[in-house]
Amino acid sequence: MSTTDLPEPPPAPRGRERRQRVQAAETGLAVLKGLGRLGGRASLSMLAAHVGESPAKVHRYLASLVEEGFVTQAAGSQQYLLGAESIALGLAAMRQAEPIRAAEASLGRLREALSLTCFVAVMGNKGATIVRFEEPWLPISVNARVGSVLPLLWSATGRVLLAWQRDDARLRAMAEQELAEAPTELRAQLDAADPIGRLAESVLAAGCAVVKDTNLRGISAVSAPVFDHAGRVCAALTVLGPTGGFDASVRGTAAKALREEARAVSAAMGFASTGLNRAGGMPTTPTP
Amino acid sequence: MSTTDLPEPPPAPRGRERRQRVQAAETGLAVLKGLGRLGGRASLSMLAAHVGESPAKVHRYLASLVEEGFVTQAAGSQQYLLGAESIALGLAAMRQAEPIRAAEASLGRLREALSLTCFVAVMGNKGATIVRFEEPWLPISVNARVGSVLPLLWSATGRVLLAWQRDDARLRAMAEQELAEAPTELRAQLDAADPIGRLAESVLAAGCAVVKDTNLRGISAVSAPVFDHAGRVCAALTVLGPTGGFDASVRGTAAKALREEARAVSAAMGFASTGLNRAGGMPTTPTP
Repeated sequence: MSTTDLPEPPPAPRGRERRQRVQAAETGLAVLKGLGRLGGRASLSMLAAHVGESPAKVHRYLASLVEEGFVTQAAGSQQYLLGAESIALGLAAMRQAEPIRAAEASLGRLREALSLTCFVAVMGNKGATIVRFEEPWLPISVNARVGSVLPLLWSATGRVLLAWQRDDARLRAMAEQELAEAPTELRAQLDAADPIGRLAESVLAAGCAVVKDTNLRGISAVSAPVFDHAGRVCAALTVLGPTGGFDASVRGTAAKALREEARAVSAAMGFASTGLNRAGGMPTTPTP
Repeated sequence: MSTTDLPEPPPAPRGRERRQRVQAAETGLAVLKGLGRLGGRASLSMLAAHVGESPAKVHRYLASLVEEGFVTQAAGSQQYLLGAESIALGLAAMRQAEPIRAAEASLGRLREALSLTCFVAVMGNKGATIVRFEEPWLPISVNARVGSVLPLLWSATGRVLLAWQRDDARLRAMAEQELAEAPTELRAQLDAADPIGRLAESVLAAGCAVVKDTNLRGISAVSAPVFDHAGRVCAALTVLGPTGGFDASVRGTAAKALREEARAVSAAMGFASTGLNRAGGMPTTPTP
């Protein structure tokens, strides 16, 4: 409404956005979402109560959802169920979900907020592999870039990917080999009796991993896990910078921001944290 | 609108049905479905072309889909992607999908069309177990009911569940044991060199299994597989009747109707047959 000559305001004002949308489509989607929240099946009255609309109105939207195959009505009952199109939609969404893209906005925010190098890594066939890398305005000189493979035991990234997949035989074997090949001073940092098991436990307990100078001299790093819809760790989100140049502790600002962004990326990957303790951000006791 | 005093007409006339639905909701769902069909990500112009609407119109619906979390827009690109709500919806739909309910209407249709006993069976911990049973108007007296466990090798139902899970060690062991305990005349019906492997191959090739008098004296049965969203066999749909009383061949009327209904139940379970040859109805060559 204003005629003042302003540069394009990002984001668009709320009112304008709303006018460009379609109210009836949103109500239909809210009914669909509500049926999902109720476990995928519900009676008309339960569903109407859940979405806060009249049964008559919800019934009309359900007729459209049935027509499009997203919902079916159970034969001889008053129950509405999510249908085949809902499954097909979910499968298509899962297939295209991937952590690099889901982490894009988070990487940018972390870089701006912390002025540290930020990256996303996944388990490749050679180990924990950097797949996306963002440098701050004043780059930190490190020997790491997209494609770099990081150790499982001596990098924060590797520790995250290892800890949540500690029962994976391949990862375990890779970690055992790293341990056998490690210089004495690194091995001395781990538990003598159960070095890998205890390391994994401490990472799970903290909800993130922290290293100082173990992988790159003079560099500290913090890493947090990204989970997919099945609750599996699918990536690690990591920040690194000069040791002493930032608080690289599990309760520091960087770790806190990182865990928060990793949770946002997990949510975008379809991960629902409710009830999944093993993937929780900060459990008070180590996961058994 | 009519004032004529008629009993409630089932089903409702098409026109009335349409008026009770919500056009804008259906357009929104069509856009959502279209994005799924395009692999879960597409540009506005691709999507508009796919659903046959103008880009301006599709853009408004996308704004609503984004608002409700079903779709996200990739940062710095013109691509729209299926979002976290689409994954959550699919997961809820998959969790509640179950073959007994999905097969309900099919069982009724089969019973009416064929006048045979129809049932759904799944693999329980004791073997192939009947979980839903429908009798025709003139019941056939058979020693089988809900809860009955059928042999893997000598019932059509068991053969279907075995054939599509022939690499499952537990099922293989159960079948081996049945073979060891079988009387000579039953063993003689199977291949001497590879009895279980060849039996499975023939069932896969036909897309269904047929038995005559092997499990129940005087009874023939035909069974077809139900697949879930992951392409796994999750149930068998079976019809049975007196031997000689119906065409119990793999190309007979009963087998044809059964395969068709099993395909419908699979679709309701989220199974998409495209490209999944191993789960195809009637491949011309046995699956390797």
